[in-house]
Amino acid sequence: MPTTTWNRHHILSLADFSAVEYDTVLQTAASFQEVLSRRTKKVPTLQGQVVANLFFEPSTRTRSSFEIAAKRLSADTLNFAASTSSMTKGETILDTAKTYLAMGTDIMVIRHREAGVPNAIAQEMDRLGVKVSVLNAGDGQHEHPSQGLLDLFTICSLIDPTRPRIELLQGKKIAIVGDILHSRVARSNIWSLTASGAEVHLAAPPTLLPKLFADYFSEETAEKSLVTERLALSGVERSRSAIPNRQLFLHWDLEPALRDADFVMTLRLQKERMTAHLLPSLREYHQLFGITRSKLKLSKPDVKVLHPGPVNRGVEISSDLMDDPEFSLIQAQVTSGVAVRMALLYLIGSGKV
Amino acid sequence: MPTTTWNRHHILSLADFSAVEYDTVLQTAASFQEVLSRRTKKVPTLQGQVVANLFFEPSTRTRSSFEIAAKRLSADTLNFAASTSSMTKGETILDTAKTYLAMGTDIMVIRHREAGVPNAIAQEMDRLGVKVSVLNAGDGQHEHPSQGLLDLFTICSLIDPTRPRIELLQGKKIAIVGDILHSRVARSNIWSLTASGAEVHLAAPPTLLPKLFADYFSEETAEKSLVTERLALSGVERSRSAIPNRQLFLHWDLEPALRDADFVMTLRLQKERMTAHLLPSLREYHQLFGITRSKLKLSKPDVKVLHPGPVNRGVEISSDLMDDPEFSLIQAQVTSGVAVRMALLYLIGSGKV
Amino acid sequence: MPTTTWNRHHILSLADFSAVEYDTVLQTAASFQEVLSRRTKKVPTLQGQVVANLFFEPSTRTRSSFEIAAKRLSADTLNFAASTSSMTKGETILDTAKTYLAMGTDIMVIRHREAGVPNAIAQEMDRLGVKVSVLNAGDGQHEHPSQGLLDLFTICSLIDPTRPRIELLQGKKIAIVGDILHSRVARSNIWSLTASGAEVHLAAPPTLLPKLFADYFSEETAEKSLVTERLALSGVERSRSAIPNRQLFLHWDLEPALRDADFVMTLRLQKERMTAHLLPSLREYHQLFGITRSKLKLSKPDVKVLHPGPVNRGVEISSDLMDDPEFSLIQAQVTSGVAVRMALLYLIGSGKV
Repeated sequence: MPTTTWNRHHILSLADFSAVEYDTVLQTAASFQEVLSRRTKKVPTLQGQVVANLFFEPSTRTRSSFEIAAKRLSADTLNFAASTSSMTKGETILDTAKTYLAMGTDIMVIRHREAGVPNAIAQEMDRLGVKVSVLNAGDGQHEHPSQGLLDLFTICSLIDPTRPRIELLQGKKIAIVGDILHSRVARSNIWSLTASGAEVHLAAPPTLLPKLFADYFSEETAEKSLVTERLALSGVERSRSAIPNRQLFLHWDLEPALRDADFVMTLRLQKERMTAHLLPSLREYHQLFGITRSKLKLSKPDVKVLHPGPVNRGVEISSDLMDDPEFSLIQAQVTSGVAVRMALLYLIGSGKV
Repeated sequence: MPTTTWNRHHILSLADFSAVEYDTVLQTAASFQEVLSRRTKKVPTLQGQVVANLFFEPSTRTRSSFEIAAKRLSADTLNFAASTSSMTKGETILDTAKTYLAMGTDIMVIRHREAGVPNAIAQEMDRLGVKVSVLNAGDGQHEHPSQGLLDLFTICSLIDPTRPRIELLQGKKIAIVGDILHSRVARSNIWSLTASGAEVHLAAPPTLLPKLFADYFSEETAEKSLVTERLALSGVERSRSAIPNRQLFLHWDLEPALRDADFVMTLRLQKERMTAHLLPSLREYHQLFGITRSKLKLSKPDVKVLHPGPVNRGVEISSDLMDDPEFSLIQAQVTSGVAVRMALLYLIGSGKV
Repeated sequence: MPTTTWNRHHILSLADFSAVEYDTVLQTAASFQEVLSRRTKKVPTLQGQVVANLFFEPSTRTRSSFEIAAKRLSADTLNFAASTSSMTKGETILDTAKTYLAMGTDIMVIRHREAGVPNAIAQEMDRLGVKVSVLNAGDGQHEHPSQGLLDLFTICSLIDPTRPRIELLQGKKIAIVGDILHSRVARSNIWSLTASGAEVHLAAPPTLLPKLFADYFSEETAEKSLVTERLALSGVERSRSAIPNRQLFLHWDLEPALRDADFVMTLRLQKERMTAHLLPSLREYHQLFGITRSKLKLSKPDVKVLHPGPVNRGVEISSDLMDDPEFSLIQAQVTSGVAVRMALLYLIGSGKV
């Protein structure tokens, strides 16, 4: 493990992550990636600690990833699923969290369909003066920091597996395509990728971009700071200067985003959006914004495609492209997820034992 | 761990608990409370044993508490939830229990919405001559012994943390407020608290007290033994003399119960009761029986409030009182729960390995 | 553990199991049965490995059995239940499996209501060149190999506990009674029992036997190879000669199957069958095909009865018979289940670490 100091107690958002913090996560995750290739994949780091997965919104994939990460650090895990819980009995979320605190939980991994819930729980823990850590596993349309970090790790460790670090992304062009408006994954990725010095291009139909942008016809003239404004509305506190101008570009068409891109991140399309008339049809969406082998010809020859999963095959991405190891990093993202989550649990948890 | 002998194989009810047994549980729980404050919170006591949580009635809170207790004793745990089970396929409860027996379960923690189910399973295990232990985690309106014991432990260890014992409650006045009629928590607490020599005052609207009491206008003239009679109907076998007269008092008003009380236990109000017209409104209930800071002025200056959780804030107890560490023992109860359940699993399980 | 070589990577079907493979499983399970009787019931064999239970069809019983088997081998376990999964989000089953692969799963235990799903996943894993193993825990009406093996182990280890082997069944008469048509348990048992040299008699109402058989009035004249034909339709690839003539007999009445039988396997009756008018009533079914003490008088004096569970008491088997340890092997089957599943996980998993 790297011998850096780590002072962050909760992981709620990437909005104020520093370059050193990004690099510490990347380097720690690289060490765990190496552990995972050994015969003995477990380390005793968090033995005796309790990691509670409080998933108020169901998610098998993310919950399993955190569970396996915790178990490989030898922690005990508790799973809470809202459907079978006393939430239906009228208890508040804060009271549920305090119950798990009182039972001896050391780290709470929290997912909720409302933005700000993990923040609120973390604030309450701090107010109580307890040393429990809160890890945001996705809150509403706000953030999904562990996803942002695993995407970052996937990209950086592709470029340099032994020493992944954000400076590797300096000058790279990265497209984020799809339902930007509703995506916490996009939000977390925008923070980390712009922090790394990459050029980030968002492409989406106007109905799936933050509303204010739709008032601007030309994406080049859009005030970049508006992004920060909109993000702030979702609960992120950060100055407008945080996203430097000229790094974030907005497009209503796919082509300018894909042109010469080094990496293309597609976002999951919630099928509910269509019922809400934000989309004409899945077929038309795929035609306009779905990533295919032929559209990728606009990009760099060694372009790679990412998707946070689960994928709607033939909608966000063509089925053959998804399965093509030459282009697709989708499986690598899942594997990175375990290493990155081990790193996060390790960094916030190892100071406790 | 204390070096007492422990002969009880199942923990089904507190009705016939002896003073020595109460003290053994309290003292063992105190040892585990101390373990939980160490850096290494696990002990290898039940390594290789299997604790099966058979929750025919859903409960995240109690199930998590038992699960964490079992894991800290290094047992393996199995979770059974009725909703996804073969119960829907027509299998009897006894057959489900015998299946878990045949799989090698050592301790069954059982919750069921019908009174007597854990007893019936324990009887079947004994008839089969197997050494599996049954622990009642709440059966209908009958008993919830681990809750009664954790409440007892919370109170006694507040008075003397290093040597909690029931004699500490001699002469204390304890109020139990709320839906006594339907509460298994109240029932278990009545057994333990009257056994300890405390003076127990029950306060509830007439519709939420056992029916026969409603025939008595003055609570002072109510035959105390009737309580025993009603409890016996719920499956508890015990002589009438078990609850000595003059220790148990019944009130249709809150005031006489709160006056000079040392401890006030509020009970969770099932909102279904209101639909059943047993209650006028939650607001009126709170006005009459909700515990507030101002009502507590009737009690001893250092009075403490307990609630088994989950709490309906502003109904059984005012929100500010619940969060006031000067009065509220609610978080301490949850923490005690893990220590007491470790003690119970240890006491019934350690003879097996 | 026996020092045999084991080359099978996935366990999907018993159709092509060799005699040596059967005996290796039986002998390995016998060793684990012995481990389970010790004070320390855990072995470190699969420490650091991840066993994922991917149950697309809910099953508490089989899932718990695999979970406890995995834990006793010191593996980490992940449970996936379809109801709370991203399956509802449109992800394909193969993509779900690949996600668990990418997270570092070593063995996937898969149940699905469609025949062939475990095979398809295994093929995909092989195509990807990864060393993950797939274990079929029941797929549609196709096969349930671990159930077939645990039934085999239960019978063989009754005859010789220290050295169970298939040759012990040579010349034994075994009746399989009930809903043959829809039973994956029957199918797996037919493969293992006929391979062992036992004489297998199937008894069912015509509506619950494979359709083609219903065209034959006399069970003696039925072409045995038709069975193979029908099984092949369910996805089993195997030549007709695989089930030698004269070992498999078909009956529309119970009596000829029970006469002089050494073992009687009853199958679970899905109550849905009745709604589909395949059965007149549960009562009539019990009268004609339910196993009772008096009907068993036709069989060998020491006949034993098996049932895969969960049992509909008074339907497939009379309640008193089910509980009679002189006749019933039902509890022994559950216990064997853990030992056999430990053996299977050990055999396919131990080459990996």
